[in-house]
Amino acid sequence: MLVVMQSDATAPQVDRVVAVIRERGLTPHVLPGTTRTAIGMTGNTSAVEAALFESLPGVSEAIRVTKPYKLASREMHRDDTAIPLPQGTFGPEAFTIVAGPCSVEDEALIFRTAEFLLENGITFLRAGAFKPRTSPYSFQGLGREGLAILKKVREKTGIAVVTELMDTDNADAVEEAVDVIQIGTRNMQNFALLKRVGLARKPVLLKRGMSATLEEWLMAAEYIMAGGNYQVILCERGVRTFADHSRNTLDLSVIPPAKTQSHLPIVVDPSHGTGKRAYVPSMSLAALAAGADGLLLEIHPDPDKALSDGAQTLDFPTFAKLLNQLRQLAPTLGRSIPSGRSESVC
Amino acid sequence: MLVVMQSDATAPQVDRVVAVIRERGLTPHVLPGTTRTAIGMTGNTSAVEAALFESLPGVSEAIRVTKPYKLASREMHRDDTAIPLPQGTFGPEAFTIVAGPCSVEDEALIFRTAEFLLENGITFLRAGAFKPRTSPYSFQGLGREGLAILKKVREKTGIAVVTELMDTDNADAVEEAVDVIQIGTRNMQNFALLKRVGLARKPVLLKRGMSATLEEWLMAAEYIMAGGNYQVILCERGVRTFADHSRNTLDLSVIPPAKTQSHLPIVVDPSHGTGKRAYVPSMSLAALAAGADGLLLEIHPDPDKALSDGAQTLDFPTFAKLLNQLRQLAPTLGRSIPSGRSESVC
Amino acid sequence: MLVVMQSDATAPQVDRVVAVIRERGLTPHVLPGTTRTAIGMTGNTSAVEAALFESLPGVSEAIRVTKPYKLASREMHRDDTAIPLPQGTFGPEAFTIVAGPCSVEDEALIFRTAEFLLENGITFLRAGAFKPRTSPYSFQGLGREGLAILKKVREKTGIAVVTELMDTDNADAVEEAVDVIQIGTRNMQNFALLKRVGLARKPVLLKRGMSATLEEWLMAAEYIMAGGNYQVILCERGVRTFADHSRNTLDLSVIPPAKTQSHLPIVVDPSHGTGKRAYVPSMSLAALAAGADGLLLEIHPDPDKALSDGAQTLDFPTFAKLLNQLRQLAPTLGRSIPSGRSESVC
Amino acid sequence: MLVVMQSDATAPQVDRVVAVIRERGLTPHVLPGTTRTAIGMTGNTSAVEAALFESLPGVSEAIRVTKPYKLASREMHRDDTAIPLPQGTFGPEAFTIVAGPCSVEDEALIFRTAEFLLENGITFLRAGAFKPRTSPYSFQGLGREGLAILKKVREKTGIAVVTELMDTDNADAVEEAVDVIQIGTRNMQNFALLKRVGLARKPVLLKRGMSATLEEWLMAAEYIMAGGNYQVILCERGVRTFADHSRNTLDLSVIPPAKTQSHLPIVVDPSHGTGKRAYVPSMSLAALAAGADGLLLEIHPDPDKALSDGAQTLDFPTFAKLLNQLRQLAPTLGRSIPSGRSESVC
Repeated sequence: MLVVMQSDATAPQVDRVVAVIRERGLTPHVLPGTTRTAIGMTGNTSAVEAALFESLPGVSEAIRVTKPYKLASREMHRDDTAIPLPQGTFGPEAFTIVAGPCSVEDEALIFRTAEFLLENGITFLRAGAFKPRTSPYSFQGLGREGLAILKKVREKTGIAVVTELMDTDNADAVEEAVDVIQIGTRNMQNFALLKRVGLARKPVLLKRGMSATLEEWLMAAEYIMAGGNYQVILCERGVRTFADHSRNTLDLSVIPPAKTQSHLPIVVDPSHGTGKRAYVPSMSLAALAAGADGLLLEIHPDPDKALSDGAQTLDFPTFAKLLNQLRQLAPTLGRSIPSGRSESVC
Repeated sequence: MLVVMQSDATAPQVDRVVAVIRERGLTPHVLPGTTRTAIGMTGNTSAVEAALFESLPGVSEAIRVTKPYKLASREMHRDDTAIPLPQGTFGPEAFTIVAGPCSVEDEALIFRTAEFLLENGITFLRAGAFKPRTSPYSFQGLGREGLAILKKVREKTGIAVVTELMDTDNADAVEEAVDVIQIGTRNMQNFALLKRVGLARKPVLLKRGMSATLEEWLMAAEYIMAGGNYQVILCERGVRTFADHSRNTLDLSVIPPAKTQSHLPIVVDPSHGTGKRAYVPSMSLAALAAGADGLLLEIHPDPDKALSDGAQTLDFPTFAKLLNQLRQLAPTLGRSIPSGRSESVC
Repeated sequence: MLVVMQSDATAPQVDRVVAVIRERGLTPHVLPGTTRTAIGMTGNTSAVEAALFESLPGVSEAIRVTKPYKLASREMHRDDTAIPLPQGTFGPEAFTIVAGPCSVEDEALIFRTAEFLLENGITFLRAGAFKPRTSPYSFQGLGREGLAILKKVREKTGIAVVTELMDTDNADAVEEAVDVIQIGTRNMQNFALLKRVGLARKPVLLKRGMSATLEEWLMAAEYIMAGGNYQVILCERGVRTFADHSRNTLDLSVIPPAKTQSHLPIVVDPSHGTGKRAYVPSMSLAALAAGADGLLLEIHPDPDKALSDGAQTLDFPTFAKLLNQLRQLAPTLGRSIPSGRSESVC
Repeated sequence: MLVVMQSDATAPQVDRVVAVIRERGLTPHVLPGTTRTAIGMTGNTSAVEAALFESLPGVSEAIRVTKPYKLASREMHRDDTAIPLPQGTFGPEAFTIVAGPCSVEDEALIFRTAEFLLENGITFLRAGAFKPRTSPYSFQGLGREGLAILKKVREKTGIAVVTELMDTDNADAVEEAVDVIQIGTRNMQNFALLKRVGLARKPVLLKRGMSATLEEWLMAAEYIMAGGNYQVILCERGVRTFADHSRNTLDLSVIPPAKTQSHLPIVVDPSHGTGKRAYVPSMSLAALAAGADGLLLEIHPDPDKALSDGAQTLDFPTFAKLLNQLRQLAPTLGRSIPSGRSESVC
């Protein structure tokens, strides 16, 4: 059920609706919009009648929402959601690029990459301290030591940091150390983890599961939002199909339906999506043209020596060239790529 | 085996190589390039030694090709293939748009669409006279009567026509009536049909099978090329996966690997690829950005009254708006969208 | 629309219903059952009212059928269809095994295999005269010469022969030469071919397309049946998925829903389904237990020297052992494996 | 690297090999077999030479293992692994059936089901205390309260209990309460969870991920085994494909390759695999015939009133009938279905 307020509804009128929802044992979610406020409710709404709310002052209408997801649904929130951070915004108009090495190999690599990014106007760094590896015998990341390096680079350079959280035990540490918490594809339906980051105060970048339908993906976002954290960024990273021309099948075609069904921003990871660096630039341009709100890219000063995922990683000159192409294309598509490095950042 | 000639090789030297190939019971394929000529051979080449050719005058080197496809392979033909027609070219630099209704419903519709397209500088019309329908009880197209309409619009307006051929019985009629012969997704491995269009003198637009790997798709192209028809245009039109957010999963990610493996031009059909008109514009822009050489689009003056596939069909104003966006984007991507309608055409 | 006659309806009453259907411009299909006759109709039935038929003498009820397929639907034909041939039946109670080499390599091979089969009580031989090959450079089968061999083995030994038809040009020849016409997986939606075998007087074994849903498969059967040939045998042969543990993913789970939706018999081809001979026996037993009506198996006296598909082909002793296991299992599952070789056959 | 001892090797000779492995900084895994002992090692084995071990007394040979999984590989352990519990064994010869309601709804349901099972000779009960639900608003299970009920039924009736563990926080509680710990399909690559159950002293039933290859599945088993817990039971429960005839595509075809690659027992869950109760009996029989070591089945005294997954749940009479069919079939396939309820159990 979604209660849409009149455009001139007052704050006490909103509060009254919230109170009525609480009285029914349900949880209200106040969703301010540009012209009017809507109030969603979660819990067992089957016994609640729309007429109850429509009789309250300031209410325009009460709508029964049919999608299994509510908070993630565009029915609940007509406008595109923008998730602002000091270093840039994930959302409409912007095209936000997050780049960095697959894993935090050592401090020198992270600082070198951060400096290169900031010089090029990119204010978001990605790097994994904890690495989900198919084999128990593969390099599993530096762990807490890696987190400390990420925290340091953030403090020293002002760059925003995105890193993956793999388990609830490290949730406090990751939340404290970084700017955006990433949930990986293998954990898209790790419900304990989703609930935990639903309590976090940092935005969550939620990768699509390897064979997740759009509805399942939005339901995973709903788990996070139902906990109170509305700052969810979707990330398409390739799905599993019969096709063998690339490691995964990067599904850019999910972008328009995701935008139709949901108000959440969506970024694309063509590095994991293709698994092959030669295909990354074309797919990055295509993601921008398809309507994505940003990119997640793997870059490394010496990809062939990277400890993980080198085959899909761009070197610095290739990345700079791609960035240039993206900047040329963006205005035609109504997007701007933030130039970053303002005083407020560093 | 591929025999690469020296850049200054003479015609008699090429002829000599051709003759030697024939003597071994193999079929030579002369593939002229911008700087040098290469000669492929098909048949059982296992017993032929490279040294035999390398000793002939004018030969630079003889290379054993490892891909199962030869003529479709970029190893055999380094440059992008351009397929020129009087009304425009499928290949590098151009971005060629083919549009029209799903089926030839009647003469008025076809002429109205052709005129609209030509007014907008689009010189390729698509429309089905024969329709592959999942149900035997669905409208199967006007057949020969539809072909006659297509032939007429072509003669009267000069527009180039693309239509699907579904069986060998109609091959002569279709080849005579239109400019480009389309092989549909369900027939990508209809080998009798592939062999037949391998003998045609018109270009063939080969749609990817619903679950075809890139290699199988290029092998289907190889069937056509092995018959002597080197004018093959690949067309991505969505594949079948678990995803249910659109009718098929439009696989733009196949474009970079297709360009790496093959020299053939590739166009994208976002209408069938998504099955939903609202998603077509974004996917069209993304196809251009991903490196496609053109688009195949379903348009109709009144999509909701179309006899087939209305849900995925654009109306004229939406198409014109999309065309405008594509024209704005193309130059940044090193492409030009032919403006068409020169005197030589009509 | 399906008109169900009373159990004691007379032949003239049936004829009357048929005549009324024809008067409406529709095609009647008389479907005799064990206790009563039903009459389906195809064509545009939207304007026909059930009441019209229910007022005719001998009619029990007229039911509007909602599935897109009618003739293939169990709604139209409650009982399992049995397709009897002199050498055995495809349908309930029986478990009919068809075995043989992938391709007709030469006459000696075919006779040797037929004799081995008959000695083991198996009365159906499979072998390809025309071979669908992914590569134009692979062995394409002996063609008409192969057909002649099949015709000869049939005449000399009385064994029933199943072979694939790939194109309409060879339809007459194949229909004349063999007992069951196979339509391959790549041609499941080759509608020209389906229409052609809809006119044939021999049963058609219809392989499931590589990514065909159950509905699409039954619609392909419907194409054949709409032409008047109701003798369709479905054949599951593996579908295309992300899984790489076998060449295709043999989908035994389609058997119960196929039996629910349709009355047609269904057999399983574990040779193509798995692509690996070591997996064939287990999957054969599982097919029997899952409710299949038979098997299509590749066998060869010397699989490693087979001209095609050797990797998935059983040798004779392994086949004999499997046959023994199947015969032990069948009675518990309410099936009998015909012992064949009666006088009437040879 | 796998060190295979001579069949008459002594315990001190085995100890010597173990010590040499430890000296190299690697972890030894002693794997006793029926005729001889093998010793695997994990860690970075690239610098270790086979010759080093082959010179030690009692060693037959040292083999470099090429699969990415080692402990789960049949190369490391030639014989089928049997996992014995007091109530029955998962492994060769037995066919072990685990049945029960989707979730622990209340104590009465669990006791009623346990009694029904034991009366029918089934000694393994499944029921979820923690439920992975796609929606945050769906019933999530009784949690710790459900665990207490399971513990009680186990103590009072002697039935063995299988339940799912969804997060590390509940690991101790689940391990203490039940006999077999289930890891669900969504957590197959929840590496933190896999590592935790690698330390458990109870067998782990590891469901295949929704789009996991066989190799990824065995690598997930390897995570558990690398922690020291070698009691892993694989469970096929349907994968995600394009097919829509059932909720998932139950992949029985993975059984023979899983048996070839690994020595671990494998059971099948046709309830989740098909999602429809009408298909469960056929697929259960097929699983037995395909070589599975057991079944996981959802049953409920009143499936239509079940709090979750009712559509795929068998009622008691249908289950009893299926059990009877399985018992008839099993001996022919070299399996026995334990009759259970011996004194030692209760």
